[in-house]
Amino acid sequence: MIIVMKRNATQEMVTKMVRRVEELGMKAHVIVGTERTVVAAIGDERGGVQAELESCDEVEKVLPILAPYKIASKETRKEPTIVTAGSLVVGGGTIGIIAGPCSVESEEQIIEAAHQVKAGGATALRGGAFKPRTSPYAFQGMKEEGLKLLAAARDATGLAVVTEVMTPHHVEMVCQYADVLQIGARNMQNYHLLQAVGETRKPVLLKRGPSATIEEFLLAAEYVLDQGNSQVILCERGIRTFETHTRFTLPLATVPYLREKTHLPIMIDPSHGTGIASLVPSMSAAAIACGSDGLLIEVHPNPAKAVSDAAQTLSPAAFAATIETCRKVAHALGMKM
Amino acid sequence: MIIVMKRNATQEMVTKMVRRVEELGMKAHVIVGTERTVVAAIGDERGGVQAELESCDEVEKVLPILAPYKIASKETRKEPTIVTAGSLVVGGGTIGIIAGPCSVESEEQIIEAAHQVKAGGATALRGGAFKPRTSPYAFQGMKEEGLKLLAAARDATGLAVVTEVMTPHHVEMVCQYADVLQIGARNMQNYHLLQAVGETRKPVLLKRGPSATIEEFLLAAEYVLDQGNSQVILCERGIRTFETHTRFTLPLATVPYLREKTHLPIMIDPSHGTGIASLVPSMSAAAIACGSDGLLIEVHPNPAKAVSDAAQTLSPAAFAATIETCRKVAHALGMKM
Amino acid sequence: MIIVMKRNATQEMVTKMVRRVEELGMKAHVIVGTERTVVAAIGDERGGVQAELESCDEVEKVLPILAPYKIASKETRKEPTIVTAGSLVVGGGTIGIIAGPCSVESEEQIIEAAHQVKAGGATALRGGAFKPRTSPYAFQGMKEEGLKLLAAARDATGLAVVTEVMTPHHVEMVCQYADVLQIGARNMQNYHLLQAVGETRKPVLLKRGPSATIEEFLLAAEYVLDQGNSQVILCERGIRTFETHTRFTLPLATVPYLREKTHLPIMIDPSHGTGIASLVPSMSAAAIACGSDGLLIEVHPNPAKAVSDAAQTLSPAAFAATIETCRKVAHALGMKM
Amino acid sequence: MIIVMKRNATQEMVTKMVRRVEELGMKAHVIVGTERTVVAAIGDERGGVQAELESCDEVEKVLPILAPYKIASKETRKEPTIVTAGSLVVGGGTIGIIAGPCSVESEEQIIEAAHQVKAGGATALRGGAFKPRTSPYAFQGMKEEGLKLLAAARDATGLAVVTEVMTPHHVEMVCQYADVLQIGARNMQNYHLLQAVGETRKPVLLKRGPSATIEEFLLAAEYVLDQGNSQVILCERGIRTFETHTRFTLPLATVPYLREKTHLPIMIDPSHGTGIASLVPSMSAAAIACGSDGLLIEVHPNPAKAVSDAAQTLSPAAFAATIETCRKVAHALGMKM
Repeated sequence: MIIVMKRNATQEMVTKMVRRVEELGMKAHVIVGTERTVVAAIGDERGGVQAELESCDEVEKVLPILAPYKIASKETRKEPTIVTAGSLVVGGGTIGIIAGPCSVESEEQIIEAAHQVKAGGATALRGGAFKPRTSPYAFQGMKEEGLKLLAAARDATGLAVVTEVMTPHHVEMVCQYADVLQIGARNMQNYHLLQAVGETRKPVLLKRGPSATIEEFLLAAEYVLDQGNSQVILCERGIRTFETHTRFTLPLATVPYLREKTHLPIMIDPSHGTGIASLVPSMSAAAIACGSDGLLIEVHPNPAKAVSDAAQTLSPAAFAATIETCRKVAHALGMKM
Repeated sequence: MIIVMKRNATQEMVTKMVRRVEELGMKAHVIVGTERTVVAAIGDERGGVQAELESCDEVEKVLPILAPYKIASKETRKEPTIVTAGSLVVGGGTIGIIAGPCSVESEEQIIEAAHQVKAGGATALRGGAFKPRTSPYAFQGMKEEGLKLLAAARDATGLAVVTEVMTPHHVEMVCQYADVLQIGARNMQNYHLLQAVGETRKPVLLKRGPSATIEEFLLAAEYVLDQGNSQVILCERGIRTFETHTRFTLPLATVPYLREKTHLPIMIDPSHGTGIASLVPSMSAAAIACGSDGLLIEVHPNPAKAVSDAAQTLSPAAFAATIETCRKVAHALGMKM
Repeated sequence: MIIVMKRNATQEMVTKMVRRVEELGMKAHVIVGTERTVVAAIGDERGGVQAELESCDEVEKVLPILAPYKIASKETRKEPTIVTAGSLVVGGGTIGIIAGPCSVESEEQIIEAAHQVKAGGATALRGGAFKPRTSPYAFQGMKEEGLKLLAAARDATGLAVVTEVMTPHHVEMVCQYADVLQIGARNMQNYHLLQAVGETRKPVLLKRGPSATIEEFLLAAEYVLDQGNSQVILCERGIRTFETHTRFTLPLATVPYLREKTHLPIMIDPSHGTGIASLVPSMSAAAIACGSDGLLIEVHPNPAKAVSDAAQTLSPAAFAATIETCRKVAHALGMKM
Repeated sequence: MIIVMKRNATQEMVTKMVRRVEELGMKAHVIVGTERTVVAAIGDERGGVQAELESCDEVEKVLPILAPYKIASKETRKEPTIVTAGSLVVGGGTIGIIAGPCSVESEEQIIEAAHQVKAGGATALRGGAFKPRTSPYAFQGMKEEGLKLLAAARDATGLAVVTEVMTPHHVEMVCQYADVLQIGARNMQNYHLLQAVGETRKPVLLKRGPSATIEEFLLAAEYVLDQGNSQVILCERGIRTFETHTRFTLPLATVPYLREKTHLPIMIDPSHGTGIASLVPSMSAAAIACGSDGLLIEVHPNPAKAVSDAAQTLSPAAFAATIETCRKVAHALGMKM
């Protein structure tokens, strides 16, 4: 940690700062520059000391040196983590394709969707039974009944089931039916929920919050990992920016950037990332081209009749064509798909 | 709802759209323009029909006419809602001042802080017992022990206690000790939590999520109101933008804008909104000047020793001076404080 | 244009609004809804009437129906515009690759760079002679001397030259040496400059401003087109968001989105779009995969010695490998490259 | 400058880095930490060496210590700069009020507006003769004829005239009529223009670009100051964020933050900052309360008839009431107005 003293900091202030750094269990090096004096604090800087030091009057700013996450870091584990859940394998060169409707609506709908996405190339089925909705007046999901239908769709097709869990109290119930627990973007910093899924041994699909930094995203994963659950898939699904022509802005550079920082697999959700069905095929191909370990795509037997997210949902035919294109890109780049 | 058809939409497509609008229970008006045909759909447009219509191939865009929230709307209730909780009154011309440390750290600390903020002009005490922390390695709060200390501080000073509840499972416990339940910014869209506090009759302090639109903010309030709890205070605490010199960007225009849309009282949190203690006094004065119903300010007996958010925490003396300045502004503008 | 009247608007106010709409040369349709009355105004809504109508007390909001650009619109011209400048062809299924150093530094450097990027697959050479620099103390470019060196590099390699022009006064001079005039992101709304390059018949490479909406971007192109210059290439180079791990956020969805709106070709600049050399190869491949008509990449004979933008600059070898990967993607998707 | 080496950096790489730092004219200190080695480079770090060092493979990141601006810095000049131009005084405890229409439309309009804003409390007149408009089809201003009318309005009222100059070629002409040269937000990084106004001795009103960081804003001022023109007023007019309910997001914390960094006076433009006339009065009061040296407000004799920016324009009566409120706040806080 580098502590930049204010220009007018006296020798006495610097000496006092050195003592504080030492009290915090770190070693201090004083470097006197032409315009500023800086104190380099050597040791473990994680855990909030930055803010404490920044609050001192004589300090201009404090610059951290280390990333605040540990278990998620590539420095902790060099080989890629491969997450496996039934038919779904993600990471280490294998691309996973999770597809299905935004919401489970009926037995007929989810079974039909499962067959269709399997035929189109999906390796897992998604479907929401508990739906986080911006408005209290919107459809909130079929709840446990929806989970049962998802399990039935798995029985019918062999596809692993990925579904969202919204609150710690439901984790046990969702675990009975699901193969992968999805943490939605709105819950990325719901720490009790992260701990609860961390206590299970089910793989977790963690979606990035729309205003979360990459560091916050990895620290959210760290909450799960820290409970002993090492099976975490990171999912970029778009961030909130000034752009309004798309629902969110999909920053695909997240894929290669995270690849340099973490061993966890990384997926892209082009459906939420754009909010516009006609943009999903090309953004899916782009995701594969930049190294994404998988895709999470909304597909509905009849998109216009979907009870939620209709505008961003692909038809089964459009989905199959999208996967076909992605496969060409993957093969051209020597990846398995 | 205004449905803009694509330029090449045929008469047949328009007729089909009129039928769909009527199936959705709305009346349709067709307006043929020079470059586009639009279909005006009259009736209740809330509940997700916009996305369904937007997903149709022949539709260019769908423009909603109505705001999606109802109970929070000024159209539902013209008079300002006044929230009262013991010593705290917020709204209808009365300014509430909630102050105290980010975290409860010890009995001595919280009792001392309570006396100090009361002396400085606070009408309620804040303090975190359950702390949402970005890193799993940071201090997570004293939990129920912290709640007991907050209750002790109330007994010692008469100040109402405002504290955060992070998960539905804790609502009952926090209700036993707190006068106002705070929903943190990270949980603004934790819908199970919003419903759980909505089921109580404790006032709720709802903080805006850092990337929430004003509409999403009011819809989050609507989740609480919809459960029958009408005592909701909205709190702007800064949004995430490209600016990095402050921790968040504090958009004070939220205050007069919300005033036009809702009857709920509106507070400002200049501590999180800036992240820098030296900016808190002037932003507090600005908040009062633009009509804020109150302030939420972090104050610690010894800011540099605060276990969390030290850099944005005022000393008791700085707090008292800030409130003194705010009082001058309030009185100059004819407000009670 | 749809004019939403306030809830309490009287019949008289509506009648008055109808008259104003008619005065503005449009036809008015009144639609009385359950909660609001709206007035649909039919006719040419471009040219600022929206703001005028929005300023009326009795109006809640005004919703435009038409896009504000015309010549750039796909509705005006269905076939893709192909921009050709010597060795560079962009659009209509042909991918253009513009590469070279951020700044022209010396004859040796630019000639060497030109040979290297040509060998690596570039179809045009970029290099800055006039450099817009955030700080007045940073290197501002070799100016006309730099232009001469670019022309020499063209003579040596046959590559078309793309270079930035910063002010109207320089347009004539830059035209003498360059094949394509680049308008930098900071100048996207420098309207005198846009008009000046619009008056030439040189192709224009227009970079998106970091906080420009897509509509503003197309309107900037419209300034050039409106002067009679139809040879405009749009270039997405990243937007400013809350993300700080990359220099900008590169929203690749711009490519397929613009494809639906305009006939102009669209390029991606992954160098500025990420600011990190190690991310450029994968983002280049992603750009091609989502249909970009070309790439603009910073390449320097010795990146670490580049006088500007060193951190985002590829070595000639890394550039050649990147293009090789892009070619595989392009061919897999049936595109020429 | 602090150079953080990668974890796997060898002793040899560190030695090489020390040599490079010394070649760049700085002194190097090596600090070996538990997880990383850092090299502290002491000396003048301005001028682009950060990017060069960051481009080295063995470097993880480079952290600057010094602000990149000099003349604008409070370290260079402790006393506040007071800008004076005829009737306008801004800074050092005196609040300047610049008001008038967005565009000069006619002699009658600008003379009437000038009298009205003077009566309402303005100390200078604003009005655009050259208008930067997003669309080429919108009104572009009366040009030199408009400048003449502004000069006539000054003659009639004694108010100093503030007007925008858009391109270097016009600087001389605008100087003949104007008392203060305004640089619009879109031109904040139009460096030739900044240099051109820097070469005059007319005061400059520099508006912040909607996506400019505070550092970039001060560096833009530095371009003007570096040419020897010390009379620069900084003007915050709102930034582009994800918020759409206001035209821009007005971050008032810019005022106290800039106060800590620079001696230049700081104004607020609540008209562009909100885009909504009804929010201007309260945001004006807030600006004064947090220490703004002035306000820039759009006022038109008949807002609904304004040819540009009608929705954010105050009537003369609303303006007078706003200034009256601001005066109360200023006096309560001991400021002159």
